[in-house]
Amino acid sequence: MTTGPFRGLTLADTVERLRSGATDPVDLVDAALDAIATSQPVLNAFVTVDAEGARKAARAARDEPPRGPLHGVPVAVKDIVDTAGLLTTMGSRHFAGHTPTRDATVVARLKQAGAVIVGKTSTHEFAYGPTGDRAANGPCANPHDPARMAGGSSSGSAAAVAAGLVPLAVGTDTGGSVRIPAALCGVTGIRPGIGRIPTDGVFPLSWSLDAVGVLATDVAGTAAGWRVLAGCGEMPGPALKDLRVGLPTGFDRLDDVVRESFAALVETLARAGARLRPVDVDDAAELRDVYLTVQSAEAVAVHHERLVERPDLFNDEIRTRLDDAARVTGFEYARALRRLAAVRATAARRLSGLDVLLLPTVPITAPPLHARDTDVGGGWTSPRDALLAHNTPWSVLGLPAISLPIPTTGLPVGAQLVGPPGGDADLLAIAAVVEKAL
Amino acid sequence: MTTGPFRGLTLADTVERLRSGATDPVDLVDAALDAIATSQPVLNAFVTVDAEGARKAARAARDEPPRGPLHGVPVAVKDIVDTAGLLTTMGSRHFAGHTPTRDATVVARLKQAGAVIVGKTSTHEFAYGPTGDRAANGPCANPHDPARMAGGSSSGSAAAVAAGLVPLAVGTDTGGSVRIPAALCGVTGIRPGIGRIPTDGVFPLSWSLDAVGVLATDVAGTAAGWRVLAGCGEMPGPALKDLRVGLPTGFDRLDDVVRESFAALVETLARAGARLRPVDVDDAAELRDVYLTVQSAEAVAVHHERLVERPDLFNDEIRTRLDDAARVTGFEYARALRRLAAVRATAARRLSGLDVLLLPTVPITAPPLHARDTDVGGGWTSPRDALLAHNTPWSVLGLPAISLPIPTTGLPVGAQLVGPPGGDADLLAIAAVVEKAL
Repeated sequence: MTTGPFRGLTLADTVERLRSGATDPVDLVDAALDAIATSQPVLNAFVTVDAEGARKAARAARDEPPRGPLHGVPVAVKDIVDTAGLLTTMGSRHFAGHTPTRDATVVARLKQAGAVIVGKTSTHEFAYGPTGDRAANGPCANPHDPARMAGGSSSGSAAAVAAGLVPLAVGTDTGGSVRIPAALCGVTGIRPGIGRIPTDGVFPLSWSLDAVGVLATDVAGTAAGWRVLAGCGEMPGPALKDLRVGLPTGFDRLDDVVRESFAALVETLARAGARLRPVDVDDAAELRDVYLTVQSAEAVAVHHERLVERPDLFNDEIRTRLDDAARVTGFEYARALRRLAAVRATAARRLSGLDVLLLPTVPITAPPLHARDTDVGGGWTSPRDALLAHNTPWSVLGLPAISLPIPTTGLPVGAQLVGPPGGDADLLAIAAVVEKAL
Repeated sequence: MTTGPFRGLTLADTVERLRSGATDPVDLVDAALDAIATSQPVLNAFVTVDAEGARKAARAARDEPPRGPLHGVPVAVKDIVDTAGLLTTMGSRHFAGHTPTRDATVVARLKQAGAVIVGKTSTHEFAYGPTGDRAANGPCANPHDPARMAGGSSSGSAAAVAAGLVPLAVGTDTGGSVRIPAALCGVTGIRPGIGRIPTDGVFPLSWSLDAVGVLATDVAGTAAGWRVLAGCGEMPGPALKDLRVGLPTGFDRLDDVVRESFAALVETLARAGARLRPVDVDDAAELRDVYLTVQSAEAVAVHHERLVERPDLFNDEIRTRLDDAARVTGFEYARALRRLAAVRATAARRLSGLDVLLLPTVPITAPPLHARDTDVGGGWTSPRDALLAHNTPWSVLGLPAISLPIPTTGLPVGAQLVGPPGGDADLLAIAAVVEKAL
């Protein structure tokens, strides 16, 4: 496995090394840039590396008083998030050479917190796919096995954190695009509750469902990144023995490794005193339909002119998906939007009497790159369907959700915790408690 | 012209006659019921007359202390508004015999205010048309000339008020369905600002655009009805000499009678001290497109199953329109919704430095019943296009708008005043000042 300077370290470790003088921002960014360069031919985690800009920011950070909680910390940003003066390509040939003039709000908040932006990470083209292997800059590989998918669409952000190239990365999640690559790459990543983190300056996939999230090696690092992006303070910590955990039914088409790892996690939590009970999610198929209808109509609304004028610039798979999406009718979208509003209005009921829902983030481990319509374990023959199945329902409901790696025997396996509306901070605190119990 | 007991009286006159004992609720409702029965063969303003229920309510009103501002006042309600225990047919064969079990909130508020519901008024089938001559119960005629349209879709409510059958009626307005029949029948009618009056229990045409409104012979009566439906207090009165009036450009395809009447109105207002200036509405065509796209997708979302299972029960014209509307794509509706939100967010700018916009409510006088694709004056060959042209833009912008009759030589002509977002009460006060100057 390719490794960088942050491999085996948490974000807190890095912040502590900077604070104590064990390293400085310039050394740190040099180490990150070297590791990125070395990893690139194998992982392709980055679309653009801003060595010059990062070194300049690092020198400023070295010579300045601390600006915030990420002072001097190298951070990578998904390539659909605008960075002023730095290429932002959406993973697409349509945006080759595109350089925005303004930072997205989340990038501005990172800079205010002292972060050093080292570059832009690979994304499934236009963030429109969970496999991370279709993009103008080529597929992104999984650091645990470069012949396998990193997951998507925030493939590069997850791979960069997993490989230790950066301690923190920004991703986006419409139907699982933070959680899926976090699970496949063995890192932690949160999709915040809908509307919790500003999405301005982020290229839309489906504006009703899009969310900006963060990835790090551990929950505390993810929480630190979330606080910066959300503009929020510290969180309280619950006790594991009082934790009321719902286990959603109907998500049991799992490959053997995921089944065993997840069962072991449930046992661990039960032994530690968590109270677990099954929770019916009998409308999962309907939620998935709402997801697809809303995402399809909005994706075509974003891309229609490009689809008509320069279809050749799209990856074939993306273009085919957009062509299919264009067949969603106005009244179907109208109904799906009404349903979206209705299920969000009652989403809190899903966790009635519970602190959190718990299920495998994805039912399989990382499939081979470019795998399509093959046996991927658990009875799944479509990697895309398998990767999305446990993720889109919570996107539709607008709930915050986090994936964290759990003990397993080979490729990474992730567990997903889902919190109530507005419960991002509590969810992160609970995830930290679960992580500690592993 | 057919006339009933309220012809030549304002709502205030009726309330005063009740208060003074010059009449009582039972006599009043009997007079209304008689006039309705006499007028029905000519006007067809009603789908259902609730003689028994109305007499019972009138007796109760006679024997009770005053309940509210409409105590003992006969009121008619458009037949797409739910009335508990009373037929509500939507003007459609699909809902023949349909009797809701609950009152719409607006009906409950009318009853709380003491009103006596005499019956349900004719509507263009499913409120889906501005001509008022397509409905399961047949066309509704204009009291000024029964060979002509009453306008729609609140055809019966406007005709009933114009003919003096009731002093107040409830209508609904998606793209002009209160204002258009008010103008063609020579009464006053308000479309409130979007969201101002609850629409629950009102059969939807297009939920993003639907509004409940009221019609009366004069502005004060309309204001009294609006206060009851909106649950609101008294309004301040501006002075005419300080009134800043914007005249939207691009609405000048008028038939001669409308052109002359409207020019005379403008002159009258200018002489009285109003300050008038042109206002550019260069996106009127775009607003119309947004209107049609949103309305189409949502109308099909409402009717799809009926369209598939029992297309034969629709009027041919409505079914054809729904078939056309079904061709609106998801991405077109997605874009139109975004545009709707964007133009509403900046709608206040339309009246920057102005108290009100002023334009003819419709550019023509009432066309013959069933007229389609014929010369209707002003160069228009489609009555539908002509009737909607001056109305849909303000629906899209979500602005409150009122139509009041202005002096003319033959068939009624209406002037439309449009107020700023949330400015319903001020708009009614300004309309009263304008009315007084006529």
